[in-house]
Amino acid sequence: MLSRAAIYRLVHRRGAAQESRFLAVLPDLICTAGLLAVIADTGIGARSRADLVLSGIVTAVWCLFVAAYALRIWSAPEASGERVASAARARLDYMGSAGGWIDLMAVLALPAGWLAGLPERDAQLFAIVWALKYIRQSSGLSLLLRVMRRALPALVSVVTVFFVILLIAATLAYVFEREAQPNAFSSIPHALWWAIVTLSTTGYGDVVPVTIWGRMLAAWVMVGGIVIFSLWAGIIATAFAEELQRRHFLRTWDLVAEVPFFQTLGAAAIADIVRLLHARHVSAGTVVIREGEAGDSMYFIVSGEATAMLAPEPVTLKPGAFFGEMALLFGTPRSTTVVVTEPSVLLVLDVADFRMLAGRRPELINVIEAEGRRRREVNAALQHA
Amino acid sequence: MLSRAAIYRLVHRRGAAQESRFLAVLPDLICTAGLLAVIADTGIGARSRADLVLSGIVTAVWCLFVAAYALRIWSAPEASGERVASAARARLDYMGSAGGWIDLMAVLALPAGWLAGLPERDAQLFAIVWALKYIRQSSGLSLLLRVMRRALPALVSVVTVFFVILLIAATLAYVFEREAQPNAFSSIPHALWWAIVTLSTTGYGDVVPVTIWGRMLAAWVMVGGIVIFSLWAGIIATAFAEELQRRHFLRTWDLVAEVPFFQTLGAAAIADIVRLLHARHVSAGTVVIREGEAGDSMYFIVSGEATAMLAPEPVTLKPGAFFGEMALLFGTPRSTTVVVTEPSVLLVLDVADFRMLAGRRPELINVIEAEGRRRREVNAALQHA
Amino acid sequence: MLSRAAIYRLVHRRGAAQESRFLAVLPDLICTAGLLAVIADTGIGARSRADLVLSGIVTAVWCLFVAAYALRIWSAPEASGERVASAARARLDYMGSAGGWIDLMAVLALPAGWLAGLPERDAQLFAIVWALKYIRQSSGLSLLLRVMRRALPALVSVVTVFFVILLIAATLAYVFEREAQPNAFSSIPHALWWAIVTLSTTGYGDVVPVTIWGRMLAAWVMVGGIVIFSLWAGIIATAFAEELQRRHFLRTWDLVAEVPFFQTLGAAAIADIVRLLHARHVSAGTVVIREGEAGDSMYFIVSGEATAMLAPEPVTLKPGAFFGEMALLFGTPRSTTVVVTEPSVLLVLDVADFRMLAGRRPELINVIEAEGRRRREVNAALQHA
Amino acid sequence: MLSRAAIYRLVHRRGAAQESRFLAVLPDLICTAGLLAVIADTGIGARSRADLVLSGIVTAVWCLFVAAYALRIWSAPEASGERVASAARARLDYMGSAGGWIDLMAVLALPAGWLAGLPERDAQLFAIVWALKYIRQSSGLSLLLRVMRRALPALVSVVTVFFVILLIAATLAYVFEREAQPNAFSSIPHALWWAIVTLSTTGYGDVVPVTIWGRMLAAWVMVGGIVIFSLWAGIIATAFAEELQRRHFLRTWDLVAEVPFFQTLGAAAIADIVRLLHARHVSAGTVVIREGEAGDSMYFIVSGEATAMLAPEPVTLKPGAFFGEMALLFGTPRSTTVVVTEPSVLLVLDVADFRMLAGRRPELINVIEAEGRRRREVNAALQHA
Repeated sequence: MLSRAAIYRLVHRRGAAQESRFLAVLPDLICTAGLLAVIADTGIGARSRADLVLSGIVTAVWCLFVAAYALRIWSAPEASGERVASAARARLDYMGSAGGWIDLMAVLALPAGWLAGLPERDAQLFAIVWALKYIRQSSGLSLLLRVMRRALPALVSVVTVFFVILLIAATLAYVFEREAQPNAFSSIPHALWWAIVTLSTTGYGDVVPVTIWGRMLAAWVMVGGIVIFSLWAGIIATAFAEELQRRHFLRTWDLVAEVPFFQTLGAAAIADIVRLLHARHVSAGTVVIREGEAGDSMYFIVSGEATAMLAPEPVTLKPGAFFGEMALLFGTPRSTTVVVTEPSVLLVLDVADFRMLAGRRPELINVIEAEGRRRREVNAALQHA
Repeated sequence: MLSRAAIYRLVHRRGAAQESRFLAVLPDLICTAGLLAVIADTGIGARSRADLVLSGIVTAVWCLFVAAYALRIWSAPEASGERVASAARARLDYMGSAGGWIDLMAVLALPAGWLAGLPERDAQLFAIVWALKYIRQSSGLSLLLRVMRRALPALVSVVTVFFVILLIAATLAYVFEREAQPNAFSSIPHALWWAIVTLSTTGYGDVVPVTIWGRMLAAWVMVGGIVIFSLWAGIIATAFAEELQRRHFLRTWDLVAEVPFFQTLGAAAIADIVRLLHARHVSAGTVVIREGEAGDSMYFIVSGEATAMLAPEPVTLKPGAFFGEMALLFGTPRSTTVVVTEPSVLLVLDVADFRMLAGRRPELINVIEAEGRRRREVNAALQHA
Repeated sequence: MLSRAAIYRLVHRRGAAQESRFLAVLPDLICTAGLLAVIADTGIGARSRADLVLSGIVTAVWCLFVAAYALRIWSAPEASGERVASAARARLDYMGSAGGWIDLMAVLALPAGWLAGLPERDAQLFAIVWALKYIRQSSGLSLLLRVMRRALPALVSVVTVFFVILLIAATLAYVFEREAQPNAFSSIPHALWWAIVTLSTTGYGDVVPVTIWGRMLAAWVMVGGIVIFSLWAGIIATAFAEELQRRHFLRTWDLVAEVPFFQTLGAAAIADIVRLLHARHVSAGTVVIREGEAGDSMYFIVSGEATAMLAPEPVTLKPGAFFGEMALLFGTPRSTTVVVTEPSVLLVLDVADFRMLAGRRPELINVIEAEGRRRREVNAALQHA
Repeated sequence: MLSRAAIYRLVHRRGAAQESRFLAVLPDLICTAGLLAVIADTGIGARSRADLVLSGIVTAVWCLFVAAYALRIWSAPEASGERVASAARARLDYMGSAGGWIDLMAVLALPAGWLAGLPERDAQLFAIVWALKYIRQSSGLSLLLRVMRRALPALVSVVTVFFVILLIAATLAYVFEREAQPNAFSSIPHALWWAIVTLSTTGYGDVVPVTIWGRMLAAWVMVGGIVIFSLWAGIIATAFAEELQRRHFLRTWDLVAEVPFFQTLGAAAIADIVRLLHARHVSAGTVVIREGEAGDSMYFIVSGEATAMLAPEPVTLKPGAFFGEMALLFGTPRSTTVVVTEPSVLLVLDVADFRMLAGRRPELINVIEAEGRRRREVNAALQHA
């Protein structure tokens, strides 16, 4: 029988990814099966055999979601014992989190449809909220929310201008076109439909100005739309790029903190180098560098183990070690092959970044050079021995 | 009876937001009611009961705008006594400002319609200029104007190229298509309509080239349109991002100037840190940090008051104090809960920015560390006492 | 009678702008009149009275262009005597420049039509190349050419990918749709029309996939189009922003070189401050700062003259002087009014930039402070005298 | 008879570009001929004479591709002898590379069609994969792959949100519109077609919402589409710009390493200057600077040879020399003409970058100034001799 901690790892999807690749994608597969059944069911006749099968799938998936929600609440106290005071508090914490709300909505989707008194096939449509599970399982939700919160004041300004242009454009279009096209422009609400379709440069073409004034207005609205969405794109893209950079910095920082070599550098040098490093998760058996190839990066081992295939006998590289620096220092081809022997996390430093860093932080390159020379001498001694 | 200063605070919307949330959004609500009435009125039959009600709402809103304009002129001398020489000067200042002009247009909207001899329902359409009030009340207007002024020379270059491409595309389309489609391409002005719809990638589809040459031209026009709007977007987005950064810098600077702690730093460190801080307005009773949670930012109190729920007795944190630095310095969970006890303004420093800063400005981190250690010792002494 | 130098200034549009605003916009007005006549002429019946008038205008404008071209060649040796060896060389230089080629095309436009044996009204259409004159007279042409040259290698990569996607999408669409829509997708060239309309997200809607496979392809093409144009926009916008910054740097550098005050700073400080200054051309009589207002920038006089309205008697500020620094240094309102008494060029330093600079270049702020103190003492001495 | 090394240079397109411009573009020409034949063949009747000719061209191009693939495998061991252990290994390396796979697909295209039992004209359509050869021959493929790999985590977040919005929008549209338009919105898969066309702002207009709720939904979908593609564009454009900058840095670094002058500078100065230099490939006989012209850049010779047309006798400038620095140092016109006498590679430093550099790296400008003074004295001595 499974312990509560094991259940926790299973349903909260921590550790599952490490135990089995299949368990890691299982929630997405279940969710996809349910959504495909909902979607496909709308395309076929009611009460046909296929309809029964698809409705069955939907119900089955829903049962799984209900079970998962219950298990998640039950196992929530396993979260990280020290932080939470009591089991009840831990359960409320989970239920109050964004993920908990999405799980609850997934559970309530079908009952909501039934309670609304809709026929079975329409009630199923509520299950489309299951799509939110994808967002819950990616790291995108929190990222997007943070970006939106950051960019909010600027976005509100632009949205305000957007609405003002929309209103004025619709009113003018109504005035210019209502005689020529009494149906399409019968009122300002109708004209608003034209305005939004034009301002977003979607241009369905179901409503098109025909008078000379209406067309001149449309030209300005199109250009205005592009200007507004340029502002919009600029704000969002800037905020997003900043937030991504911030995340990268924090994640890499945590990895750098585990490499003793970097601890010998000052805080300023670390903050500098963290921005240039990229983490790489490597599975066992991967050949990271191959003898004779041209080198374009060096590697620091955060966790795991690698083996350098040196001449007398291979050398094992433990966490904290680095390799591949010769190619960057002297521009020579790789002098040895390095294979990862355990699932490892490496920090990669590209040659371009290495050289920029050499300009800004010569002391760092000196350390790498000295350390590399020392290791080479040890190797040479081993070869002579 | 209300004093002139109270009227000023009310109609110029300063302080109103602090006194009551309802007063703060009232102008927007009134404006929205008026606009909705104008819009809805175009969709219903003339002289129906609904028409009478909606027209009544429009007139009522207009009366409020007239009254607000009069009160604003009357109370303008309260603006900020020291700066302005005389009451008349203050009133002219208000009337000449962008906000004053928008208020005037809002007042003149309906009379303009009546004077133009239009029927009542058409005269009301002028009231759509009330939408400008939204821009007036957001901080967007001045921001957008500044951005446009900054980006003007570059935008003029791009707009010139845009018009040249438009003219040449229309002429070529006219030449290529006039035989195949004598109606849609009967003259260059007609072809210009096609050109603008295509160049903005709106693509209504009401006019579409059918000849081989016309379609090849259209392909180039589409690609050209995207190139031009890329330039456009790049210019506007860059100028906007710069201007936003500038605003953020100035606002945060003013807040930083109120925190004595920062004054002990040099000007260079202040200019550096101002870019990384974000202001946060917190209402009384908010739990800013909670014991046991992971910490990702520290806080400086600009104004207001907070209470740290320490063991023997809570400690009150006054403006100028900071808290939450332990989690950033040592990576430990929050060691205490801090609650804001008055409406406060805080400056927030994120952990990523804190660490980047640690690289660039070690002296700043030293001060925070020393100050934090001192406070901890005081707390320890209190506990022993 | 006009000298050759005067003709040169007139037709090459140097100095003309300073002599008269009307002369400065005259070439654009003439060009616009010609283009409007060409465009309008396509919309009216042949051999009507209006047609005769419009054709007359076109011919008149053409005559002016011929005359201008002749005068420009004749007066070219006045360009800048020292640089060019001989008059013939100067004339060839002009004829070989981008501007010279555009002028030549403007001259040859009508004869080209006549020589091609086209009817009068069609021959006139060639005159649309006059639109290039707008680009010639803006500074946009050289800017755009430089940007395109810079971004060329990256753009070529993206355009290659664009064409490959276009070809493959058209072939697949042809395969998927040719049975359902034998007319619209009768061959790959037909399908290419659909592909370009979709890839640019123009979406006329004249050709639309109807099969399930065609629609899935279309979805990928739309998304692919947005990705490609994102790359495109990113490349162009980045190159454009860089080029604009470079231009701004060079122009401001030349102005800074004329202010003796900046020469006392080191080269590093100058390179730093040049990026933050903005040039402003001010006409005589403009009130730059007004007593009692809040200040958000300080000013350096490059050329021209300003008067500070100080108490005992106004003080004249000559090129090289600066003013408005008090408001930035101490945050006080403007203590005096400054009026420009001659057409002047000022360099403006915003308060946000001033404070950033104060962090990076404290020595600069010290100089400004010292200089400001000295000037104040002089003023005080004057008041006492 | 050609040696294997010569074949290698020919078919792997190394060195070919230097021997003959025609050989350099030959592969593209062959590929284009083949693709045009495939495309044109779909537009004409089967078994016509033109069909036979075009099919013949397609077969001929295919034969060339087969031959090229065989020759490339055969000559692969010439790649760069030192790196690869054996001929078999070198051949596998080529076949496993991205270029090798594209070549193999080009070879298999026609047989795949034949094996699938398609008629001759349809089998030919597989040849559209030849378009990938363009990408293979540009440097774009590896660049795009690197960019995509870098931006992958962020793109996955955005794509997830994109799909969730798509699903929810389609379901809502199906609910709102299925009664008003039972054909266009008969099921969610049908509604998905509308959703993708709207979300990408393509807007064909073949399916358009007509109900009030459907239109309000459509407005949100359009706006949502623009937000998503703003994020998308921001991510891709940022990653692309970074990658381009990285490439430029590496290429310029390699060139700078060949100029002895730069080796006298410290590593920090080199890393700084590399970012500002641009490589320029110049053919023999080009006049790089012309006496009397205004100068806006200086040049460093990486390889090749240039001649300065000095007064007594011309001076030959060898690799490592620089010229054009006077105009930047003193702002004077060019004092001499410099002609390139062999195909050369130059590094160009723009005046704007030169001045920014002067601020950050005064020692560099000192070296240039000293070196320039020395050269001038040598020239003066030559003139006196």
